[in-house]
Amino acid sequence: MTLVDVDVVPPPFFCPIPAAVHPAVGEIEAVAIEWLDRVHLHRTDRERDRLLGTHSAEFYARFAPDGVPTHILTAALWVYWGFAFDDARCDSGPYSMDPSAFLALSGMVQRAMEGTVRPAEPYAAALHDIAARMRTQVTATVFRRFVEAHRHWLHCVAWQIGNCAAGRMPTVQEYLTMRAGSAGGPPTVELLEIANGIEVPSREMDSPAVRALTEMTQLIASLDNDLHSFRKELVENQTAHNILSVLRGHDGLSPAAALDAAVSIRDRAMIRFLELRDQVRATASAELRTYLAGLGHAIRGNIDWAGNVPRYLSGGPLRVEISEEPHDTNPDPLPYPAVSWWWERLAG
Amino acid sequence: MTLVDVDVVPPPFFCPIPAAVHPAVGEIEAVAIEWLDRVHLHRTDRERDRLLGTHSAEFYARFAPDGVPTHILTAALWVYWGFAFDDARCDSGPYSMDPSAFLALSGMVQRAMEGTVRPAEPYAAALHDIAARMRTQVTATVFRRFVEAHRHWLHCVAWQIGNCAAGRMPTVQEYLTMRAGSAGGPPTVELLEIANGIEVPSREMDSPAVRALTEMTQLIASLDNDLHSFRKELVENQTAHNILSVLRGHDGLSPAAALDAAVSIRDRAMIRFLELRDQVRATASAELRTYLAGLGHAIRGNIDWAGNVPRYLSGGPLRVEISEEPHDTNPDPLPYPAVSWWWERLAG
Repeated sequence: MTLVDVDVVPPPFFCPIPAAVHPAVGEIEAVAIEWLDRVHLHRTDRERDRLLGTHSAEFYARFAPDGVPTHILTAALWVYWGFAFDDARCDSGPYSMDPSAFLALSGMVQRAMEGTVRPAEPYAAALHDIAARMRTQVTATVFRRFVEAHRHWLHCVAWQIGNCAAGRMPTVQEYLTMRAGSAGGPPTVELLEIANGIEVPSREMDSPAVRALTEMTQLIASLDNDLHSFRKELVENQTAHNILSVLRGHDGLSPAAALDAAVSIRDRAMIRFLELRDQVRATASAELRTYLAGLGHAIRGNIDWAGNVPRYLSGGPLRVEISEEPHDTNPDPLPYPAVSWWWERLAG
Repeated sequence: MTLVDVDVVPPPFFCPIPAAVHPAVGEIEAVAIEWLDRVHLHRTDRERDRLLGTHSAEFYARFAPDGVPTHILTAALWVYWGFAFDDARCDSGPYSMDPSAFLALSGMVQRAMEGTVRPAEPYAAALHDIAARMRTQVTATVFRRFVEAHRHWLHCVAWQIGNCAAGRMPTVQEYLTMRAGSAGGPPTVELLEIANGIEVPSREMDSPAVRALTEMTQLIASLDNDLHSFRKELVENQTAHNILSVLRGHDGLSPAAALDAAVSIRDRAMIRFLELRDQVRATASAELRTYLAGLGHAIRGNIDWAGNVPRYLSGGPLRVEISEEPHDTNPDPLPYPAVSWWWERLAG
């Protein structure tokens, strides 16, 4: 199934949150590039260009416009690492269709964050270095949250690889659950605490409302990535599913109807995010307020970054417009039990 | 490869921690059996006998001899559920050799802990009920810790299924990392907070020393399970690797040498556990002291439970002896970077 025949113009991204970029973005990028040339995850100049072309420093400078530069650097190093790992080990290459091999590799990569001995495998070694740097900057609780978020991501990537390898089309509800993790949302969002140099108290961070807001951010950003990247995946003949192919494959929708349904899911989650965030902010600690602001920067920063990044442009220029109005204003819970609790369990 | 030719007598289990069982074990078991007959995970009387024969209520009454009975019941329900899920979906049946299918199933089972709608799939539905009960008893932080521990377990089970499906023998270091998760250690140990009605403060729970002690408990119990269960797995022709087959397959050891090496790994971890636990206890909060005691009860309770449980007896009576002296007294870090940090990063 291809989406070549989608000639419908997508609506603008509903995101009434202002854009900002940390002013130290240039210095952060320069130091990150030195690091990348030292750990040498790329094998060719073309791979190096592609990696620098992710603009990962800019990406995270948008997520944490008021963050601590040396901490944003840590976050940016991880984002560069994540894109490199994603391209080399998840989206293409021998692991992309072999869940057994990916589970074994990613299990030991995950574990490399803990050890005192630098592993031989290059991705594990680079992640080991990032984790060691992180531990010098953050509390044990924030580090552990990152480790758990990282495992969540790798678990969902394995799930996605398993579906692709088996030629198995997930249901919409399964796809939403899997994709919010596999697109990198959990570690990327957890880096907000690190980049801002804060620890949100556990009683707030683990509350259902803050977990729901965190998950909404992951889902919205992953659907936005799907909307941005399906042309790239098409051009490069990659194996990943995306929300449009899932809606077409499972619900039998036309290309135009699938696009309409995807944008509706995304915008209804965004409406709920804005509403619930306002409620939570009213009684939030200073650290939580910083985190909640960061969730908004993440959603908006991800959209704005995608409009200029070479990663998404191989299918031609990308038209990214922002709207203050949703495409679908339905305030009801989405009809998928995996996410409907964001409305139902938190009513009132 | 089989281990039928192991006629070496295994040494006693080194565990100088006294045994105890919560006095309400009988009532807890009776209520749990009522619940099991209601959710009906078994399809035949033989499966029901097998499930009750896990003695899961006794198992958790040994883990929390001073716990809150209604909370121990919650823990016991999960242990019954875990054994049922393990037998039906992990160790045998169509999922046991199909990582793609297992990842998709277990991803949605994991997610069933969050939703407000009871899923149709029977294992997901029963877990949904347990999670709803749990949320009424524990803080949001303890619930979240359980959710993350549960994901850790399922991730490692997928990893193990992937290795079996690919006919891939892991290295010893990979096996230790995977098996400490896949044997159910993470959720089972996290249930200690739930059964005892406590929340260990995050600054203690997430500290490297407490995380190391938690991981050691998971590893020791999983190796003990390997020593207990390899005969059962042999008789039932199951596919799981265990520490003895890994040591033989990877390091080319004889059966006797593999047994010796396995017990050395376990006993050296146990020595470190006892030493580090004493250090941490000196400055621990009351909640952390309860948790640290629980880790010891878990290691000892798991051994004592295994000596009488029908689950492990299909290979004939099981000889379980306890020793106060280790088989190997080497105090150095184990030579595997994935676990050597329990000594190296926490020196002093």
